Amino acid sequence: MTDIVRADGRTPDQLRPVVIERGWSAHAEGSALISFGGTKVLCTASFTAGVPRWLTGKGKGWVTAEYAMLPRATNSRNDRESIKGRVGGRTHEISRLIGRALRAVVDTKALGENTIVIDCDVLQADGGTRTAAITGAYVALADAIEWGRAKGHVPKNAKALIDSVAAVSVGIIDGAPMLDLAYVEDVRAETDMNVVVTGRGLFVEVQGTAEGAPFDKRELDALLELGVAGCADLREAQTSALGE
Amino acid sequence: MTDIVRADGRTPDQLRPVVIERGWSAHAEGSALISFGGTKVLCTASFTAGVPRWLTGKGKGWVTAEYAMLPRATNSRNDRESIKGRVGGRTHEISRLIGRALRAVVDTKALGENTIVIDCDVLQADGGTRTAAITGAYVALADAIEWGRAKGHVPKNAKALIDSVAAVSVGIIDGAPMLDLAYVEDVRAETDMNVVVTGRGLFVEVQGTAEGAPFDKRELDALLELGVAGCADLREAQTSALGE
Amino acid sequence: MTDIVRADGRTPDQLRPVVIERGWSAHAEGSALISFGGTKVLCTASFTAGVPRWLTGKGKGWVTAEYAMLPRATNSRNDRESIKGRVGGRTHEISRLIGRALRAVVDTKALGENTIVIDCDVLQADGGTRTAAITGAYVALADAIEWGRAKGHVPKNAKALIDSVAAVSVGIIDGAPMLDLAYVEDVRAETDMNVVVTGRGLFVEVQGTAEGAPFDKRELDALLELGVAGCADLREAQTSALGE
Amino acid sequence: MTDIVRADGRTPDQLRPVVIERGWSAHAEGSALISFGGTKVLCTASFTAGVPRWLTGKGKGWVTAEYAMLPRATNSRNDRESIKGRVGGRTHEISRLIGRALRAVVDTKALGENTIVIDCDVLQADGGTRTAAITGAYVALADAIEWGRAKGHVPKNAKALIDSVAAVSVGIIDGAPMLDLAYVEDVRAETDMNVVVTGRGLFVEVQGTAEGAPFDKRELDALLELGVAGCADLREAQTSALGE
Amino acid sequence: MTDIVRADGRTPDQLRPVVIERGWSAHAEGSALISFGGTKVLCTASFTAGVPRWLTGKGKGWVTAEYAMLPRATNSRNDRESIKGRVGGRTHEISRLIGRALRAVVDTKALGENTIVIDCDVLQADGGTRTAAITGAYVALADAIEWGRAKGHVPKNAKALIDSVAAVSVGIIDGAPMLDLAYVEDVRAETDMNVVVTGRGLFVEVQGTAEGAPFDKRELDALLELGVAGCADLREAQTSALGE
Amino acid sequence: MTDIVRADGRTPDQLRPVVIERGWSAHAEGSALISFGGTKVLCTASFTAGVPRWLTGKGKGWVTAEYAMLPRATNSRNDRESIKGRVGGRTHEISRLIGRALRAVVDTKALGENTIVIDCDVLQADGGTRTAAITGAYVALADAIEWGRAKGHVPKNAKALIDSVAAVSVGIIDGAPMLDLAYVEDVRAETDMNVVVTGRGLFVEVQGTAEGAPFDKRELDALLELGVAGCADLREAQTSALGE
Repeated sequence: MTDIVRADGRTPDQLRPVVIERGWSAHAEGSALISFGGTKVLCTASFTAGVPRWLTGKGKGWVTAEYAMLPRATNSRNDRESIKGRVGGRTHEISRLIGRALRAVVDTKALGENTIVIDCDVLQADGGTRTAAITGAYVALADAIEWGRAKGHVPKNAKALIDSVAAVSVGIIDGAPMLDLAYVEDVRAETDMNVVVTGRGLFVEVQGTAEGAPFDKRELDALLELGVAGCADLREAQTSALGE
Repeated sequence: MTDIVRADGRTPDQLRPVVIERGWSAHAEGSALISFGGTKVLCTASFTAGVPRWLTGKGKGWVTAEYAMLPRATNSRNDRESIKGRVGGRTHEISRLIGRALRAVVDTKALGENTIVIDCDVLQADGGTRTAAITGAYVALADAIEWGRAKGHVPKNAKALIDSVAAVSVGIIDGAPMLDLAYVEDVRAETDMNVVVTGRGLFVEVQGTAEGAPFDKRELDALLELGVAGCADLREAQTSALGE
Repeated sequence: MTDIVRADGRTPDQLRPVVIERGWSAHAEGSALISFGGTKVLCTASFTAGVPRWLTGKGKGWVTAEYAMLPRATNSRNDRESIKGRVGGRTHEISRLIGRALRAVVDTKALGENTIVIDCDVLQADGGTRTAAITGAYVALADAIEWGRAKGHVPKNAKALIDSVAAVSVGIIDGAPMLDLAYVEDVRAETDMNVVVTGRGLFVEVQGTAEGAPFDKRELDALLELGVAGCADLREAQTSALGE
Repeated sequence: MTDIVRADGRTPDQLRPVVIERGWSAHAEGSALISFGGTKVLCTASFTAGVPRWLTGKGKGWVTAEYAMLPRATNSRNDRESIKGRVGGRTHEISRLIGRALRAVVDTKALGENTIVIDCDVLQADGGTRTAAITGAYVALADAIEWGRAKGHVPKNAKALIDSVAAVSVGIIDGAPMLDLAYVEDVRAETDMNVVVTGRGLFVEVQGTAEGAPFDKRELDALLELGVAGCADLREAQTSALGE
Repeated sequence: MTDIVRADGRTPDQLRPVVIERGWSAHAEGSALISFGGTKVLCTASFTAGVPRWLTGKGKGWVTAEYAMLPRATNSRNDRESIKGRVGGRTHEISRLIGRALRAVVDTKALGENTIVIDCDVLQADGGTRTAAITGAYVALADAIEWGRAKGHVPKNAKALIDSVAAVSVGIIDGAPMLDLAYVEDVRAETDMNVVVTGRGLFVEVQGTAEGAPFDKRELDALLELGVAGCADLREAQTSALGE
Repeated sequence: MTDIVRADGRTPDQLRPVVIERGWSAHAEGSALISFGGTKVLCTASFTAGVPRWLTGKGKGWVTAEYAMLPRATNSRNDRESIKGRVGGRTHEISRLIGRALRAVVDTKALGENTIVIDCDVLQADGGTRTAAITGAYVALADAIEWGRAKGHVPKNAKALIDSVAAVSVGIIDGAPMLDLAYVEDVRAETDMNVVVTGRGLFVEVQGTAEGAPFDKRELDALLELGVAGCADLREAQTSALGE
């Protein structure tokens, strides 16, 4: 497997260059512009004291996420969802995935009655936008929680973040498992999987889909192993960006 | 594990009673009313000669699916999506899942330039609606393809269905893996997974989510094993309904 | 007139077979799956203690209805209104008709500050869906009121239902008045009328439309007579289903 | 009955003052600003050569109608449907009624492949807006057909209009049948009926609703008689406006 | 410049005939049907005691406006925005312009916590609809404020209206500046400008657009001068309509 | 006037630092990330051979623009227009302004039957987003036209761009005219104006609004002079970015 060289020169188990510009936004309480190679996602975290009415008085906070793509983030232009007048199924699905991934590492009791909305806007897309979004969103989330703590909204010693979280795509191309697929690889993959893994190496989400032929247990295992290793590398990039 | 008795008396690896009323609809080219215990889904397959304009002339057919729930399918009433004016994220996500699952066992070239739309309407919900929908939709799809063959739209010897497909939910409750979760079990599950498996035992889709604590590889493996076995049982129910 | 034999063998003044499966839904406070021949409508009544804000404190309850059709209830598939993003004029019109028909037999003061929403979902359509919906909805409504009484929301001796209500379509085909039109008859009718009649034989609603040539008073009278007799038969089916 | 004097001094069988300003619009091919007392409706008919694609080549024309109300046509302001983003059920229902009423007097074959869209916009509402709309729309329609004939779109001798049509509301107030209800009467009516009648005195549409107690055959007959007489008076106003 | 004679016989600096029918609506607290030649706009002002929640308790009132056009106000029919399901950009833009123009002459503190909504519905369009709307809306607004004062909602001596406001279009056609463009002139204009001017002759809004070639400062000055003079004439028509 | 020092140290006639990152996008045929101080707008130009159907065969091209803002571009988060299901009035108005500004410098005949869509997405907002968008969009447009020429879609010697265009905001604060208002200045401005000026110094658009007191001709002249000078500076930044 290690002899395979990919179009961009990577080995099968190698991530694309990952860059995290923490604090990109002047306004948001937490933010990161993250790149996985040509994929660039702007993640902002908006902290608001208080929770939606249906949560009031339960002593718990709320974390949610919205994902979207600029019309010309992709190779050909897509119509805006605001103009179509509705949010598409893919957008909804990814927004929900990001929200679940982040909530898996938040102790909403420790967060207190505060709301954090994470926006992940894809400025440029080259495969793996949802996994880049989760990985960058974690950095924005961590900073927004610290902002809330500094302002006295989040209790001083509350451990609101119980773990970190990152995500990466894996897939089988020409029979070989590959990490962090670029767009040209993604369209050729027989099986496509996204794994969301915590800093401790546990799974938050595993979503594998046969795009071509169905896959067997052995292939699934190979993909999971690759994904876990990739998320460990992403965890390092997060740690370094956060200066931990 | 085998000593655990569930609220409805099942063992952990036991499906709820599965009933498939094939040909329920007088109008559709294929149909099945499927029950997984208290979950009842009406699946209809609508066959149309021809394909959407963007596919014309490529010699390939098209299979798609739409999932929805009646407002009082659940324990308390939900507003209709037609009245809200938009399809929710969960609905979109499940519709896309069903469509992908079915397309995985269709050879669209063999189907020829024909379109099949599968509607899965949940009349009553008690957990596992998306997996019941996929399992019933396969029966409706098989009949619609035969209808198309009988009418001369699908070539006589074309093997449009290359495999069968079924789906089941699995989850970890109080640390124990369980098959085919009813609603009361679903809300308590720490990890929740849907597996879509072909008649040959290969994976089409694996979607696992940590609802509570993240899960490890060992738990994932136990859930997959349970899911594969459950889908084999569902395959038998399909075979019997189709009189194969 | 009595010598005419219809396509399905009925006499002009004969209903199609009427079947009412009371309590079809495991979740709803009242429900009925009603068939008028090939027309099948699932009627559920959802009881909620309390009324919408604009009615609060007036000591009156609220009854409303929503009608919809599954996409493949008809001979060819219709797009879902949830996907079109708006409820069509026909759907609105029938929902309003059902609501008015039911409210005509409810004493909202006796009902107390409670809300009942009736959902009428057409699973299969073969003419007369709105009249089947009204007739079945009455059964679901009656059970939901009794449920509310058993739970203590509706006062014990309050006569919330002041009469029963049923509905049937009538029409003129080839110059002859006919009761309870099936779809193939409906499309050929020169005049089409829906009558909503109480158990006491009084009119709640009369809606007659010239589809072809305008009609005169004599024809109108013949249709009304037929409709009143048909509703009396439907009243018996309701009584029997409710075990009164 | 003739001793009853109504709030505005009318006898029970008397219309409010009817004024038809034919040709109000400088742009439309036919138009009329019609008043039934305080109710003022601007009716415009837009003639287009050709028909919608689904009708092409069938040698038939198409007539349709849209009804709407200005936000402050009523005593208190209503939000615009354009801003709410959807057309309400009442609007849909009335638009459909107007369209059916007009099509009942048009021979679409004689009209040829031409389309006429009638817009009925209520500038001021005081009861009976839908009946005023139908009565005024007929005048606009007649002029639009003549315009089409003058321009050579409608064959010279084709009798596209086979009859005239008018409409009026009737109702029972304090037990007495009344013609052409003003708003203050409408809200008090126990039974409310709209009748659409051709110039020859035949029914196109009869829509009677029990707003309070259900009604019997005798009351129905009294209302119909009143409505037919009222429509005959309206026919005269139309004739006079059209200078026939 | 004075030698130029326009299609309708006007001189370049002459308004079309302006007619203001004050109090056209029986229901609105203030209203005016205004004509600028063939352009007819119905302006109604709806006065409501109280303000939207976000303004409550600030001691200030709120004035807003909505502009719309009947489908056949123009030479060919436009689809209704209610049916398209959304308000177009042009409609939004003009509504916002009218609102700003009116608020510029209202002292919201003196108005007290009251809301006035101005509806400007174009019944017939022949150029300059937005400027006619502003000019007529001022008359409706003035009457609505007096109504509020008479009812005791607006303090007796509060000077809620601090100035009057009117608007007119100007443009350059074949190199010559022209006042109050009719539709046939508007489509030919190289530069098109709308000016909103108070009774004291100050600018509230200046919106100039090069439709053809860009314009220079000298042309801009000529247009502004013409616009200010036109608004002074409109101010007289307002004064006369209001009987001031 | 020159003695006034602004919050950020600028003189009244000084622009904020202007940075134009030409070719920011890997996918678009032309692009620029432009900053006016803290305002950052990503402008992409999408070139498509061919025109919308209604323009086909007229030998003319089409240029249009869409403006939008990321939810957290501003100091507090705004809901997404895609989720609200409609595009707001402000968004529409600015999109239309940008489109008009660009079309003013394009010879659509020379462009040939090609379409260019400009997307201006505000990543961070600090006042002047629409003027930054126009200024950056011109750079993206110029590059997209060159791309079209290189690919042979635009004739080699056709002068499709007949001039350049830039825009800037000006306003009166505490009685003093100021150039290029930052957000904190914008909210305090008594009069707010946007001027769109070509490279030759002619006006394409002048939009002045009294936010507080109405303004007079002298103030208007001072603002225009400031705006023209500011646009000349922006023209230099464009020239330098384009390497002309």
